[in-house]
Amino acid sequence: MRSVGIVGIGHTKFGKSEVPFMDMVCDAALQAMDDAGAKTGRNNVIDQVFVGTMGAGMVNRISGTASAVVDTLNIRPAMAETVENGPASGASAIKLGFMAIASGMCDCVLIIGAEGMRAVTGWEGTDFVATMLHPESEYKYGATLPAFAGMFTRLCMDKYGLESKDLSIVSVKNHANACKNPCAHIHSRVVLERITNPAYINATNPIVADPLRQFDMCPVSDGAAAVLLVAEDKKDALGFGDKKFVKIAGMGSATDTHVVANREVPSDLLAVRLSAKMAYEMAGVGPEDIDVAELHDAFQILEIAESEEVGFFKRGEGHLAARNGETALTGKKPVNTSGGLKAKGHPLGATGVSQVVELVRQLRGEAGERQVEGAKTGLAVNFGGFGNNVVSTVLTTK
Amino acid sequence: MRSVGIVGIGHTKFGKSEVPFMDMVCDAALQAMDDAGAKTGRNNVIDQVFVGTMGAGMVNRISGTASAVVDTLNIRPAMAETVENGPASGASAIKLGFMAIASGMCDCVLIIGAEGMRAVTGWEGTDFVATMLHPESEYKYGATLPAFAGMFTRLCMDKYGLESKDLSIVSVKNHANACKNPCAHIHSRVVLERITNPAYINATNPIVADPLRQFDMCPVSDGAAAVLLVAEDKKDALGFGDKKFVKIAGMGSATDTHVVANREVPSDLLAVRLSAKMAYEMAGVGPEDIDVAELHDAFQILEIAESEEVGFFKRGEGHLAARNGETALTGKKPVNTSGGLKAKGHPLGATGVSQVVELVRQLRGEAGERQVEGAKTGLAVNFGGFGNNVVSTVLTTK
Repeated sequence: MRSVGIVGIGHTKFGKSEVPFMDMVCDAALQAMDDAGAKTGRNNVIDQVFVGTMGAGMVNRISGTASAVVDTLNIRPAMAETVENGPASGASAIKLGFMAIASGMCDCVLIIGAEGMRAVTGWEGTDFVATMLHPESEYKYGATLPAFAGMFTRLCMDKYGLESKDLSIVSVKNHANACKNPCAHIHSRVVLERITNPAYINATNPIVADPLRQFDMCPVSDGAAAVLLVAEDKKDALGFGDKKFVKIAGMGSATDTHVVANREVPSDLLAVRLSAKMAYEMAGVGPEDIDVAELHDAFQILEIAESEEVGFFKRGEGHLAARNGETALTGKKPVNTSGGLKAKGHPLGATGVSQVVELVRQLRGEAGERQVEGAKTGLAVNFGGFGNNVVSTVLTTK
Repeated sequence: MRSVGIVGIGHTKFGKSEVPFMDMVCDAALQAMDDAGAKTGRNNVIDQVFVGTMGAGMVNRISGTASAVVDTLNIRPAMAETVENGPASGASAIKLGFMAIASGMCDCVLIIGAEGMRAVTGWEGTDFVATMLHPESEYKYGATLPAFAGMFTRLCMDKYGLESKDLSIVSVKNHANACKNPCAHIHSRVVLERITNPAYINATNPIVADPLRQFDMCPVSDGAAAVLLVAEDKKDALGFGDKKFVKIAGMGSATDTHVVANREVPSDLLAVRLSAKMAYEMAGVGPEDIDVAELHDAFQILEIAESEEVGFFKRGEGHLAARNGETALTGKKPVNTSGGLKAKGHPLGATGVSQVVELVRQLRGEAGERQVEGAKTGLAVNFGGFGNNVVSTVLTTK
């Protein structure tokens, strides 16, 4: 297959955006173009734009986001499509960009993932997110994502001896990492004692969806991230010869039952396993080759479960690895060096692209205080629905 | 590039759907799978599903439509993404399916275009459709699609001598064709005199957006259409050896300024021209090779203008060709044999796929009473926004 890689990255500061949705999208895009040295205007080299977003229509009441981006960036007549795969919309957009170049129809593709979701908060926000559940069997009965995550966590507690404190350990780690990431939503270090001490836990870390507490899940964020993809065989001709090329070595995606209750083993995340396997096989690597990973921790339990499904740790031992510091910045398998969804924030459609931006920074050696020494190969897992559609990406500079 | 074609088609009856949105989507999909003889379940051969829809989120409050389809059809763990490009979402989904197979990542891709838009009618429906206009420069000032189409028509009248009656001629033709299409929304023959006679025109064909009248624009429809794509080199191995293979010979798409007022020549549809050129070039054909075409006549003026932009007729002469019956079923260049958006209906995301389904029927010689004799090569033009993002497809059995 044709070799495809990344030559430019962009990332807005996640949090509450003070600018309109479209401005945020274009900000990330322009950063990625600037980073790569790509021009706008008639002689631009971008063949296609993909925007990954879940709620541009539902929340921001905008259709054709990708077309608007092309016009605003002055890169007409580039092709343009908007892609939706719930919170995995960003990685899906990258997957489509990869296909577009691999197919030979394009040589250079701009990907932006974005969400302006703080326009809806509270009940309305929870309801918006819940539209990713099955429309007939889940959503209409009032099911929500925190409810599923709560039940999933309880299963893992019963089955593997995981404790509430393990979730807090992941949370504390990701908050610490986010403090080193200028683009993160939350820059506050969290002390384990403060969110786990039974004497005041209900004040500092209240229950949201039993057994999950506030620090066991991500905040609601606005944000956008972008990457510029090129075909390796056209990198020089298109003027990106002096840019570090981070290769997309593997790309995988897979679906599981949309209705969570229909899963044979409800404590498994089958689509994570299958998508990672597909990405590993395409890249010709295994979990042992991954130096740094971004795993989709919308809920802290997911980071633990995914770290098992992608083969970093044995089934039921992910929480032990977290306890032992193995997933910390200085551990054997650093996970969510960016701060993860927990503390970097989780603007749904932006997340998959943001994960890849973090890996590019790590593999370029540009991650500053959170740099993993000698990182050459990275894995990103972007999780749609409650694991019903997962996209995994392996990047490498080897 | 790897050869990609269609081995299965599905199409619901357009109109007001009596079933939920997801059922309609799956109905079209199953028809396409049945038509191709594709299985569901573990041994299914579908690698990827793309659903093209503009309003699943905004109107039907469903995210991750494509994931839900995979589960309902029992074709897990097929990959799945939902694609949005306004009313060109359907053709965009086909374009991505084409890329997915051409890239080598997939061998067999299921495409469904769908819209359940009669859930919002009247003001709310017009507003939903208007979200495809530029969010900052058009939508928020109350611009609507009929308003743009009205202004565009006036320009063409002033510039080319086009008359109101020419729009009615196109309308009458498309209504007549739709009467021969069992899937069409409207099965009523329209008599030219009845919608043009000044004595009672304001009763039979009232003004909607001056100079446009009711019969100069399409109805609001629910509907879904589907196609099953395969790689030609895997057609036999996947069990489709006995199916007629309709090749996607050319695929093109292009964007124009999102803000209509910014166009250098506002009476041109540049993205139609560029996308058709791209599709022709890939297919190695020209307008003279097209035996039958589906052009996006959300407004009748668009059929006329597009028939010029794709090279069937000289600039400013499309309405003359329509007057002379050249685009009628028995004319030299039959356009919208399906009934077009005008009378077959226009469920936004479904339309691009529906157009291709009609071409497949024509090229297979299965179009019944509306069959164009000896049709071997067809062109579909699917138009997003007010021409800001257009996708053109050339199909052939040559």
